[in-house]
Amino acid sequence: MGMPFTTHQRLRFCDTDRLGHVNNAIYAVMYEAGRAEMLEQAGLLSPAAGRGVVIARLEVDFLREMNWPGEVAIESAIVRIGTKSFTLRQRLSLNGEIVSRAVSVLAVIDTETRRAVVLEESWRADFERWLDPDFT
Amino acid sequence: MGMPFTTHQRLRFCDTDRLGHVNNAIYAVMYEAGRAEMLEQAGLLSPAAGRGVVIARLEVDFLREMNWPGEVAIESAIVRIGTKSFTLRQRLSLNGEIVSRAVSVLAVIDTETRRAVVLEESWRADFERWLDPDFT
Amino acid sequence: MGMPFTTHQRLRFCDTDRLGHVNNAIYAVMYEAGRAEMLEQAGLLSPAAGRGVVIARLEVDFLREMNWPGEVAIESAIVRIGTKSFTLRQRLSLNGEIVSRAVSVLAVIDTETRRAVVLEESWRADFERWLDPDFT
Amino acid sequence: MGMPFTTHQRLRFCDTDRLGHVNNAIYAVMYEAGRAEMLEQAGLLSPAAGRGVVIARLEVDFLREMNWPGEVAIESAIVRIGTKSFTLRQRLSLNGEIVSRAVSVLAVIDTETRRAVVLEESWRADFERWLDPDFT
Repeated sequence: MGMPFTTHQRLRFCDTDRLGHVNNAIYAVMYEAGRAEMLEQAGLLSPAAGRGVVIARLEVDFLREMNWPGEVAIESAIVRIGTKSFTLRQRLSLNGEIVSRAVSVLAVIDTETRRAVVLEESWRADFERWLDPDFT
Repeated sequence: MGMPFTTHQRLRFCDTDRLGHVNNAIYAVMYEAGRAEMLEQAGLLSPAAGRGVVIARLEVDFLREMNWPGEVAIESAIVRIGTKSFTLRQRLSLNGEIVSRAVSVLAVIDTETRRAVVLEESWRADFERWLDPDFT
Repeated sequence: MGMPFTTHQRLRFCDTDRLGHVNNAIYAVMYEAGRAEMLEQAGLLSPAAGRGVVIARLEVDFLREMNWPGEVAIESAIVRIGTKSFTLRQRLSLNGEIVSRAVSVLAVIDTETRRAVVLEESWRADFERWLDPDFT
Repeated sequence: MGMPFTTHQRLRFCDTDRLGHVNNAIYAVMYEAGRAEMLEQAGLLSPAAGRGVVIARLEVDFLREMNWPGEVAIESAIVRIGTKSFTLRQRLSLNGEIVSRAVSVLAVIDTETRRAVVLEESWRADFERWLDPDFT
């Protein structure tokens, strides 16, 4: 069973909005920041690979407000590896409290044809260190 | 049956990312831009009201890439009005093609206590012009 | 004498910050949005051209706050065409009032070597429709 | 002589643009992120104080491109304290290399009247730990 991939993002003043708290769209920014670092480490964002990862669906639950300043922990785990897609569960924490959870479905495409391709075995191996079907 | 609330957003150069297309998080920015203008017109973003609207959940389906430059049409319709929350369906179009769909669940809070309150009748009336349970 | 290049940007809710107004960094976003559309129309953002435009310096004067919602007019004029660089003056208006002015110095580079190159005559011709040394 | 105020920001995937590098407007975001944390530590962003800080002018020199992923060091020093305004010099570094320098002029306002006020002695004292007229 793998461990979640964890990275951190320091909130920026411009992440706030006129309601005083961190803007809702920043949650999506944070989830992408974590996802992209995970995929980068797996070598999947290198154009040389001829493969790319696109997001097909994102579900976000907003549990608590976030306030600037602070540092957000972004945890990501792979909960399902399919034939042409995989599913990620992620969560955001601030000051030790979970403030949001998300599920995203990602597809792998051929960067030339822009069509979904079958997930290669080597990628599956890369992914397994972050595979935890029970992560929530 | 109401009509969807429609607004437009011109893409900005910084909405793109190094994959060449419009960044995924910008879809969430667009949905919020449309939602906020709708709530503003309904008078729900005025602090004087003592009521605020917070987002509890967002689901986004990414159907197509968007490329800069261009102007995005954001359509929003209310599909359900509950006791303390309401549900919005939205979609984004670029050059006449639907590129994304979203569902969001919004709660109404007392801006003092930060707790969910019952939706007032006057708000329901405001909302009904955008109520279309069949909008997808 | 050319006319300034003009484009518009509708403010987004997330452009605001917890001070209630539009965040300062959004002014830079707006200037870039205007600049990039001007360069795109001049054909300078096409990778096929083998030439690129990079910004060397940006000076922004903040004259007034901007408040959401609203639509910003972005005017851009070329005030100087040098050998390897050119200078732009820009201004932002909201509700008919000038809220900010900016000057930027842009260099033209070879996209392969990443080095500054001499501005080609054909570009100068493209630029002259927006050339107004007296624009402020 | 004071030390510069230093903070760090991890680049986000969405900070990139379709030119492949970190977008120019993000430099302004970074400078604000550093400035705001410095002002927050000095207690100047607290609404209770009845005083606020607004930016009057920003000058940015872009020395090098930044590439994702990475962590940006933001250094800020006060180089001048005037009667109603003060001047900041800042710089951004990535991987130990300075990538940008900036100068900003900030004014102190009464948050009620929105007018510039004289800088209080207590603020001057707060600022002196970051005062370094020779910082570049």
